[in-house]
Amino acid sequence: MNTIEKAGGRPEAGNPGKAADTGDRVNAHSAVMTFGADEPLALDSGVSLSPFTIAYETYGTLNADKSNVVLICHALTLDQYAASTHPLTGKPGWWPFMVGPGLPIDTDRFFVICQNVVGGCMGTTGPKDNDPKTGKPYGLNFPVITIGDMVRAQAMLLDKLGIGDLFCVIGGSMGGMQVLQWAAAYPDRVFSAIPIATAARHSAQNIAFHEVGRQAIMADPEWKQGGYLSNGTTPGKGLAVARMAAHITYLSETALHRKFGRNLQDRDSVTYGFDADFQIESYLRHQGSTFVDRFDANSYLYLTRAMDYFDLAADYGGVLANAFRGTTSRFCVVSFTSDWLFPTSDNRQIVHALNAVAANVSFVEIRTDKGHDAFLLDEPEMFATLRGFIDSAARTRGLVA
Amino acid sequence: MNTIEKAGGRPEAGNPGKAADTGDRVNAHSAVMTFGADEPLALDSGVSLSPFTIAYETYGTLNADKSNVVLICHALTLDQYAASTHPLTGKPGWWPFMVGPGLPIDTDRFFVICQNVVGGCMGTTGPKDNDPKTGKPYGLNFPVITIGDMVRAQAMLLDKLGIGDLFCVIGGSMGGMQVLQWAAAYPDRVFSAIPIATAARHSAQNIAFHEVGRQAIMADPEWKQGGYLSNGTTPGKGLAVARMAAHITYLSETALHRKFGRNLQDRDSVTYGFDADFQIESYLRHQGSTFVDRFDANSYLYLTRAMDYFDLAADYGGVLANAFRGTTSRFCVVSFTSDWLFPTSDNRQIVHALNAVAANVSFVEIRTDKGHDAFLLDEPEMFATLRGFIDSAARTRGLVA
Repeated sequence: MNTIEKAGGRPEAGNPGKAADTGDRVNAHSAVMTFGADEPLALDSGVSLSPFTIAYETYGTLNADKSNVVLICHALTLDQYAASTHPLTGKPGWWPFMVGPGLPIDTDRFFVICQNVVGGCMGTTGPKDNDPKTGKPYGLNFPVITIGDMVRAQAMLLDKLGIGDLFCVIGGSMGGMQVLQWAAAYPDRVFSAIPIATAARHSAQNIAFHEVGRQAIMADPEWKQGGYLSNGTTPGKGLAVARMAAHITYLSETALHRKFGRNLQDRDSVTYGFDADFQIESYLRHQGSTFVDRFDANSYLYLTRAMDYFDLAADYGGVLANAFRGTTSRFCVVSFTSDWLFPTSDNRQIVHALNAVAANVSFVEIRTDKGHDAFLLDEPEMFATLRGFIDSAARTRGLVA
Repeated sequence: MNTIEKAGGRPEAGNPGKAADTGDRVNAHSAVMTFGADEPLALDSGVSLSPFTIAYETYGTLNADKSNVVLICHALTLDQYAASTHPLTGKPGWWPFMVGPGLPIDTDRFFVICQNVVGGCMGTTGPKDNDPKTGKPYGLNFPVITIGDMVRAQAMLLDKLGIGDLFCVIGGSMGGMQVLQWAAAYPDRVFSAIPIATAARHSAQNIAFHEVGRQAIMADPEWKQGGYLSNGTTPGKGLAVARMAAHITYLSETALHRKFGRNLQDRDSVTYGFDADFQIESYLRHQGSTFVDRFDANSYLYLTRAMDYFDLAADYGGVLANAFRGTTSRFCVVSFTSDWLFPTSDNRQIVHALNAVAANVSFVEIRTDKGHDAFLLDEPEMFATLRGFIDSAARTRGLVA
């Protein structure tokens, strides 16, 4: 075991000024924890991952009886920097409306942990790290991981930190899958659970979009069968196309129409060519190219695969309700009317399963035109809902403000 | 001018047996018409295309007063082989439920013409043909074309064939855009018009999906800035990814769930790898690879661009109704409940514009879970609707069976 703590959440790169501001306000700490040969991560595939490291951020202060822990589970292309500056982009945390003093996840009251998932590329062990067997980056030799593996690794970190149960586990999209997995695999460790804009199993259409992204990456000759890091190449074009395709699915048609419509980009008329005549083209190209600067192509393959494999009911005899039988956790399920990636029907299936076992569950469908990404945006109704649910749970738990 | 007719619709490759059957049944003829230097196609971009060739199929027999002509306009990746065997794939025509003896587009009554669009790759001049200036394939030196250009070329062919007006012009998707363009640009030549699953202008989301496809093609190093034919390479991987992304948009989530769900492909459990574990992955990969065998990557760029540029109202002072002012054509607009590429709302805008000028218009939204591609599939309610509309128009026109 080897723990390195860096106080103040100051990043190694990016915008130190902003980072310090954010870090001080939420009492941010960056840390990494390494698990040695005697503490392997047992993966669903049957493979053991060892050694491995988890990089994580914490915000706020752990209370004396360790009863105020909130675990934030991040989405596919996000990371542990929920409320601290991203070290590569210099941008502020990705959940600015949700995490901070006085916000729904109140860093003045809660001790918040956000871990980079296994298979990720922001410090936790993933395909870009060295395989101890070869001394070279894993690439495709990295074992395929699942949502269950991500959660098992998170639990190991909490064990190491001496944290038993979680006051709350919360996340959207792939983060919501982890929330469901937590509630199913560790029911006694979850006081409250907030899965947002997610599903208990990935749909055929979503697998299809992921497969397009993976094929775009694998079609890039610079990908080199996953060995690009050893070859000194970067499959940036393929990864950018994957990101562009995925990004469309994160927004709604209405939002795209409102934001861009058929507006032209810095020109009065079309150019009769293949430049980015339309603002939407320019926007998508920008999304693609900036993603390449902060994300690892193989990580994208592994994390999309983990989502595709997620089918919680399959682990419980094909009946989703069985995953939650006997649970005493309280749940708040949130969906968005314009989310077509994880539509309300997917979220409602979770609610039905919870109802079937008489679980304590609230369900809110937020009316918004912002699509799947609404969970990352300024959605006052979502904040009010989550604030009410979290405050109520905190009172029940005896966590007074 | 140079006309070559090949009787019987017999293909140069593929499955001659099937072709003969189909050809005989519908009285199919394959033909090409070349327009020389004295007959240039004036493009919307200001460029003249010359010389150029149009490849087309005809079915049925032209009547004495040439009043029984039906023009079928094809969609993005389709071609003139609506009711005859495809010469490359050997597959039967793409509209088997719609075109033939006794079918809604009755080849025993109507003289049906289906032309490969300008910019296409099945015989009509497009980027894979030789640029007379260089003697090499056009590639990106081919001028950008519009839906208006496609229709202008079609009208030139009809002029050459001595055909004045059309009893009916019909098409789905990009074909529907051409139908609208026909009705707007040549109102006196259109007795009846059937735009199916289309829009009077391409939406931001649809432009976005097209841009992803184009970027996938252009990211393929074998694309060679469009010069792959001269370089002896093929951007097959990029084109396959483009096709995969587009194909998802042609289906509905419900149809994908019904057809594939999370079913595995020839295996009992997931392989913890990046093979096509799921049937939907295998299906998409197949769609990608077979498309590459029959379509030209640069044509895909040009035709998607033509669709992106389509905004009929923009040519008429920003008011769509102006495009149809004074029309005496009768319209039947068809949409599908599960089509999210050209949703009913897009089709309804066309109907509203037609209503605003008191045009003769029927509108039917077909309840189906098959998505955008429903217009190509066995949809009895669509056939009944179109049969009724076409029969009624034929009676009005004095075309008795």
